[in-house]
Amino acid sequence: MRRRRIAILGATGSVGRSTLDLVERSPERFEVVALTAHKNVEALAAAARRTGARLAVTADPSRLAELQDRLDGSGCRAAAGPEALLEAAASDADWVMAAIVGCAGLMPTMAAIEAGKTVALANKEALVTAGSLMIDAAGRNGATLLPVDSEHNAIFQCLAGSRKQDVSQLILTASGGPFREFTIEEMCRATPEQAVAHPRWSMGAKISVDSATLMNKGLELIEAHHLFGLPSNRLDVVVHPQSVVHSLVEFVDGSLLAQLGSADMRIPIAYTLAWPERMATPSERLSLADVARLDFERPDLKRFPALRIAREALEAGAGEAIVLNAANEIAVESFLRRGIGFCDISRLVEEALGKIAAPAPSSIEEVVALDGETRERASLMVSESCC
Amino acid sequence: MRRRRIAILGATGSVGRSTLDLVERSPERFEVVALTAHKNVEALAAAARRTGARLAVTADPSRLAELQDRLDGSGCRAAAGPEALLEAAASDADWVMAAIVGCAGLMPTMAAIEAGKTVALANKEALVTAGSLMIDAAGRNGATLLPVDSEHNAIFQCLAGSRKQDVSQLILTASGGPFREFTIEEMCRATPEQAVAHPRWSMGAKISVDSATLMNKGLELIEAHHLFGLPSNRLDVVVHPQSVVHSLVEFVDGSLLAQLGSADMRIPIAYTLAWPERMATPSERLSLADVARLDFERPDLKRFPALRIAREALEAGAGEAIVLNAANEIAVESFLRRGIGFCDISRLVEEALGKIAAPAPSSIEEVVALDGETRERASLMVSESCC
Repeated sequence: MRRRRIAILGATGSVGRSTLDLVERSPERFEVVALTAHKNVEALAAAARRTGARLAVTADPSRLAELQDRLDGSGCRAAAGPEALLEAAASDADWVMAAIVGCAGLMPTMAAIEAGKTVALANKEALVTAGSLMIDAAGRNGATLLPVDSEHNAIFQCLAGSRKQDVSQLILTASGGPFREFTIEEMCRATPEQAVAHPRWSMGAKISVDSATLMNKGLELIEAHHLFGLPSNRLDVVVHPQSVVHSLVEFVDGSLLAQLGSADMRIPIAYTLAWPERMATPSERLSLADVARLDFERPDLKRFPALRIAREALEAGAGEAIVLNAANEIAVESFLRRGIGFCDISRLVEEALGKIAAPAPSSIEEVVALDGETRERASLMVSESCC
Repeated sequence: MRRRRIAILGATGSVGRSTLDLVERSPERFEVVALTAHKNVEALAAAARRTGARLAVTADPSRLAELQDRLDGSGCRAAAGPEALLEAAASDADWVMAAIVGCAGLMPTMAAIEAGKTVALANKEALVTAGSLMIDAAGRNGATLLPVDSEHNAIFQCLAGSRKQDVSQLILTASGGPFREFTIEEMCRATPEQAVAHPRWSMGAKISVDSATLMNKGLELIEAHHLFGLPSNRLDVVVHPQSVVHSLVEFVDGSLLAQLGSADMRIPIAYTLAWPERMATPSERLSLADVARLDFERPDLKRFPALRIAREALEAGAGEAIVLNAANEIAVESFLRRGIGFCDISRLVEEALGKIAAPAPSSIEEVVALDGETRERASLMVSESCC
């Protein structure tokens, strides 16, 4: 069997490092051709040397000289800047991990899709802000999109090639976050420290706050809509505090399939790496007898309005999803800096959606433009709100 | 699309009636060609008239005249006896439901397999007592076996065509039965009335007792071994009192897939009817938020020795599985007649396995012979034990 040729966009972040971990355990199966990083050229060069990558790219041109030094004699070419990122995305890899965080990941992800690669999607913004564009481009260019996010990966596993008309709904599980049992009053007084204390997964501050507001689940509804081509009324959310069931698919016959596993991102990443086969991982096995108990409850849209607001944005259109995502980022940043309160996050996002005209974008450039405009205007709203 | 041509062996039992219910709701999809029943010719004739079946068979030749009378003018031919059952199994159906209970179902099930049909297997004895023969015959004749039992159907759904080497283990769920929280002393004093009070599914007395001893799960381990081709050490059991998760598959990457659903046999039957597609059913949808809580625990082999004994029989060979099954039936019958105590059931089965030589059978005739011999000798052991 020919080895799968791998490019990792965002190789030094959490998903990138987990991908490298798996790839390096199976050199007989994978060949790394290109790696990219933002600024961490030390880790990038080390990974390129270990894996024998032929191209290493830093997004930051000011780091190119250091990268070149660190790769000296390795046979790996160093490059830098946006064009080099696109080159890595469209290199001779068969399989591309799109794990660059934020809007910076949009263009490279699109380049991998337009090059017809099998693309493991870990960039959350890609589907939320440019879902229709990405899905259309994948169809046109014969690219395959494999979701890395544990929820969407779970659904992808449960679908296993089922016909769309055999599916009645997709059910995303939500941990409920640290405020699952808080009253509205307690939530509105919550501090950043309380909000980032996620009960199950260790994550960055921004995504932890999204998990506390349930905005993350709202954004995932939008991703699921694009990935699986189902309308809002066939996408549901159930709160499941243990986060053992990662999501479910309900079929027209009344059967549900669920994917379960321990909280280790290497499991969904391995699924995308080996797809349509599977590969062994060193991940801890889940023992249901040790877990002993799984709970489920309906999300409370009164206490977690972000979920309602995100669903309304999904139903309104592709532009609204961009505004939702960008305004939320600005509001969360402000909350983390103690500029606004926890309950102001959803309020500000809803206000931004009411005020900012949001035509559906017809290109990634238009996505980036609306994203930028929203950030500016939302920042103003935040200043007016808090100061 | 050509309609799928259906034969139902055992059309008047619980599984047969559920199958008819689904088939009759989708006349555009299914055409009933043959129906069989044991003695209930009234229900058989009525079903044949409703569905327009061309052949109706009663196993009991003394009922043939009545069946002929009831079918008079319908255009449906009446027949009776073992040869007629085999004719129904090997008729021009594409799809055969093998739902004749007990050893009487072995020959007709084998006939359907040898005719290369798609066979929905609801006869529990088929795989327990003749698993290797059935699986070999399916391979030789190009037959497809689809399990109807909720646990094996769940596993079949979770596998969805996965490669065997990608599977690390199959995990059967067990309700734990009515004595899940009983002490050994309480169990040994248990009455037939207590034993048949199954907490989740409404079932016949014999299978309810098997659920109380966990022997049903032991028999299902043997079925799973044959159906999915995995050894005993890759088959596990977890107790799950709510019986919402019907079974799971663990893959080599650490992922688990589970199938869930309400307690309605029409869901797995519909899966086999529509396979590889799905069809709508009128079954109640499962709401995880309404279920609210799922529990899991390890089975206690001290209190439920039947599970250990069955696993040992599986590991010993095909003959031992026949002895296990037959001795258990005799012991359960005696328990239901208050001849022996609840804890004597497993003790007698283990005793029978120790005393009866059990060569692996090379034909269904040899299966039936060893089954018969075991029943005679186990009946003697029961008389010695109880009287």
